Amino acid sequence: MYDFYEKVERWGVQEVRIDGRSDGNPFTDYELKGEFKGENETVTVHGFYDGEGSWMVRFMPSYTGNYSFKAEGSAIDFTAIGTFEVTEPSAGNHGPVGVRNTFHFAYADGTPYYPNGTTAYVWELQSDELQEQTLKTLSEGYFNKIRFCVFPKHYDYNQHEPWSYPYEGTPMDSSVLTPENFMLYNGDKGGNDFDFHRFNVKHFRHVEESILALQKLGIEADLILMHPYDRWGFSLMNHEEDVFYLKYAAARFAAYRNVWWSFANEWDLMPQKSVEDWEDFAAVIMSNDPYDHLRNIHNCTKFYDQTRPWITHVCAQRIDLYKTTELVDEYRQAYQKPIIMDEIAYEGNIQHGWGNITGEELVRRFWEAAVHGGYAGHGETYLSDDRILWWSHGGVLKGTSQKRIRFLTKIMEETPGCGLKKVDLSWDDSVAVPEEEQHEKASEYSCYLFYYGFFRPSFREFYYFPEDAEFEAEVIDTWNMTIEKLPGTFKGPYFKIPLPGTQYMAIRLRRI
Amino acid sequence: MYDFYEKVERWGVQEVRIDGRSDGNPFTDYELKGEFKGENETVTVHGFYDGEGSWMVRFMPSYTGNYSFKAEGSAIDFTAIGTFEVTEPSAGNHGPVGVRNTFHFAYADGTPYYPNGTTAYVWELQSDELQEQTLKTLSEGYFNKIRFCVFPKHYDYNQHEPWSYPYEGTPMDSSVLTPENFMLYNGDKGGNDFDFHRFNVKHFRHVEESILALQKLGIEADLILMHPYDRWGFSLMNHEEDVFYLKYAAARFAAYRNVWWSFANEWDLMPQKSVEDWEDFAAVIMSNDPYDHLRNIHNCTKFYDQTRPWITHVCAQRIDLYKTTELVDEYRQAYQKPIIMDEIAYEGNIQHGWGNITGEELVRRFWEAAVHGGYAGHGETYLSDDRILWWSHGGVLKGTSQKRIRFLTKIMEETPGCGLKKVDLSWDDSVAVPEEEQHEKASEYSCYLFYYGFFRPSFREFYYFPEDAEFEAEVIDTWNMTIEKLPGTFKGPYFKIPLPGTQYMAIRLRRI
Repeated sequence: MYDFYEKVERWGVQEVRIDGRSDGNPFTDYELKGEFKGENETVTVHGFYDGEGSWMVRFMPSYTGNYSFKAEGSAIDFTAIGTFEVTEPSAGNHGPVGVRNTFHFAYADGTPYYPNGTTAYVWELQSDELQEQTLKTLSEGYFNKIRFCVFPKHYDYNQHEPWSYPYEGTPMDSSVLTPENFMLYNGDKGGNDFDFHRFNVKHFRHVEESILALQKLGIEADLILMHPYDRWGFSLMNHEEDVFYLKYAAARFAAYRNVWWSFANEWDLMPQKSVEDWEDFAAVIMSNDPYDHLRNIHNCTKFYDQTRPWITHVCAQRIDLYKTTELVDEYRQAYQKPIIMDEIAYEGNIQHGWGNITGEELVRRFWEAAVHGGYAGHGETYLSDDRILWWSHGGVLKGTSQKRIRFLTKIMEETPGCGLKKVDLSWDDSVAVPEEEQHEKASEYSCYLFYYGFFRPSFREFYYFPEDAEFEAEVIDTWNMTIEKLPGTFKGPYFKIPLPGTQYMAIRLRRI
Repeated sequence: MYDFYEKVERWGVQEVRIDGRSDGNPFTDYELKGEFKGENETVTVHGFYDGEGSWMVRFMPSYTGNYSFKAEGSAIDFTAIGTFEVTEPSAGNHGPVGVRNTFHFAYADGTPYYPNGTTAYVWELQSDELQEQTLKTLSEGYFNKIRFCVFPKHYDYNQHEPWSYPYEGTPMDSSVLTPENFMLYNGDKGGNDFDFHRFNVKHFRHVEESILALQKLGIEADLILMHPYDRWGFSLMNHEEDVFYLKYAAARFAAYRNVWWSFANEWDLMPQKSVEDWEDFAAVIMSNDPYDHLRNIHNCTKFYDQTRPWITHVCAQRIDLYKTTELVDEYRQAYQKPIIMDEIAYEGNIQHGWGNITGEELVRRFWEAAVHGGYAGHGETYLSDDRILWWSHGGVLKGTSQKRIRFLTKIMEETPGCGLKKVDLSWDDSVAVPEEEQHEKASEYSCYLFYYGFFRPSFREFYYFPEDAEFEAEVIDTWNMTIEKLPGTFKGPYFKIPLPGTQYMAIRLRRI
């Protein structure tokens, strides 16, 4: 017995569900493979055990047209075959995101993608009610990416039990933990009894549902595969167990077009994993993900070697307390990849220095990232009696930055072509131009975005454009989210643009 | 004919005024030397021509008791001799400032001196009325140091004529200059006619009166000897003319206890002077200043080699747009001298990035300097219809930072001993302790000043003090200038201190 969809849209998911073996430990004792053929591609994928005798192979078609498949392996007694049609993508389905123009991103259909994401590490492992609230918040369109973990999280403000565990078994008694002692908790992982060779299918299905729910909202799922914030032993599995997990994750998740692989949150806080381990993990994911989803590895205080070819883009936590996204252009030079500064302190007021900056400062860091030719990441950590903080649990947003981040995304989407890069025109502002344009002089681009950050000029003088240069000018208040088109045009070799003498202003010039 | 004071206080000024030659060019044709003898010192100084046949030798006694002097040279036909008494210093006279504890400063009488200064480049060369207003502003005690120039300044907002010129002669026609064209002005110095071997005595006397007026207010005069912002040719004098000027400046100014020598504002914008020139200039001042006043050389974008032994302390302009006084401890390590970051952007709203940050940000930079074991400098550049900006002209202060800087000075003065240094206790704050204390562990100091800058913790947890540690705690609001003593005491190994969750807070702990 097996079933599958007769019609699937391009970059949608075909699922072939097959009744198969359930005796012994199906996760380890049997295997299943699927082959999917269309006019333009033949893709082989690993199937996986989905519980209760049910096996599955999943596939994401990259083209339209007629496809056939076959599935076989020791998990089933026969070969499952079938044909299906891949239709045009529906509205809002632009395919998976990939790298474009070296430093930027675009969907597979060519639409530029400007990642302005957030972090809610284990939003999907909270109560159903809270998850619903998170999705409602995300439906406001503030963000187009979210970082979150497959494994549950133990940390400050994270002592409660998760929605589910990834493995069959029982967790330690968490009643010994209090907000006051968790920092002193030595993480000996005593009292846990999990079988690292029997996945909790319910957990993984739930992660998939969460990925799909995000997909519907146009949000990329930056899926964190491993992390150190653990009291259950998931971060202490051995190499074979890690690889076993990664293969299962790839078999289950790779077919979802909005999945990104984030190998670690804070790899450098996991001394139990060597660089060789991480390199192996990358190889495992790459050989089990036929769609070549984006891959990153996130740091705490020490960058992983971001020149490694398997890393598609830098996803970096800031390593300087004061200078964060202003370093984006240096990182671009160093790594020749897209730069996402995905932990640059969160808007909030908790005790930790990574979670108590103002909305203004977080938005400033987003803008500096943008005009330096890269991207930033959001998070929110406001103290709350219920100890629900967006950064880990999702819920509602109490801050001020999210609307301004959505506004920034709109501004970025108005850039000609795909992506921005910084040029040097004057020493005391950050100026971005379209990445795709190439000119001999910095004064020859079609469009400029000047950002003044915490500076408060009452006007700016433009000395560096030639006599025949003529521009339309807009004054952008990045905090109040207004765009004011100035009357007339502005001509070289000298012109002056008035500004209100307040922080967080930008000027956009478009050449006529 | 000559006269002098019969009584002078310690670190006051003895002036021996002698009628002498005035024929030819007295500045170049004649010389005068003075020798001053007390029980503990014999000091030889150069005299100088003060116009109208009047010659002068000046001397600052470093001890009390009976002194004698003699003065002789080709400028006079006889040897002038005399005796005088040096009395105890009057209230407020602590002597000249010198380096103490490697990274800090103290007056000669041992009183610690925490330089929290301002800049008003040519305040003393404005109208009498404006000068008076400046002194009135300074009398509020916001600052205890001011940077200003001997030579007048030409620059944006500085096109008008100065109070006086340092040389006999006539300046170029400044009516060709407008606010709009000064930046394009090529500085060819055409139309000036100055004699670089005839000082305008009135100008130098006026600088002295200004130094004395500051001295009365307890303010150190950080005297800038050379700078590039010039339309009269003073920055283009040849080496012999420069040395001639420096000797005259030393003969006139060195006896004032509150004088510091700042060899240049932005030495690196004067390519006409070589490093050899600057080294020579330092030697000239050192051999003509028997009191060994503090010496610095200020940069624009490139530090002068601050390891040079003649440089007593670093007086640096920030060279990073985003990270300024947070670098103080790195500079301390590199140079093993006191660090004053004396141009870190000014509070204001003009068009230039060096002059349009908020008062909050400027005060934050002052505090970061302090808790990193160094010092910062103030300036103010608010647009004004009369084009009078404190940074260059003095006048009234319109900003918000000056009061908070005075408050910081008070906090610094409450430090045990002399000076602060940064210790590492946690990654996400800046913590200073008394420089003079030496302990094996960072947790053993008698006093701590934690500063949270733009972070907004709602409370802080203290994990790193041993069980027997007990503290009194104060919460300092560095912006609202309040110090709140918390009830009770705080004991290791764990305690928590509540904070309001706003920016610019500090905690002071004093060990019991």
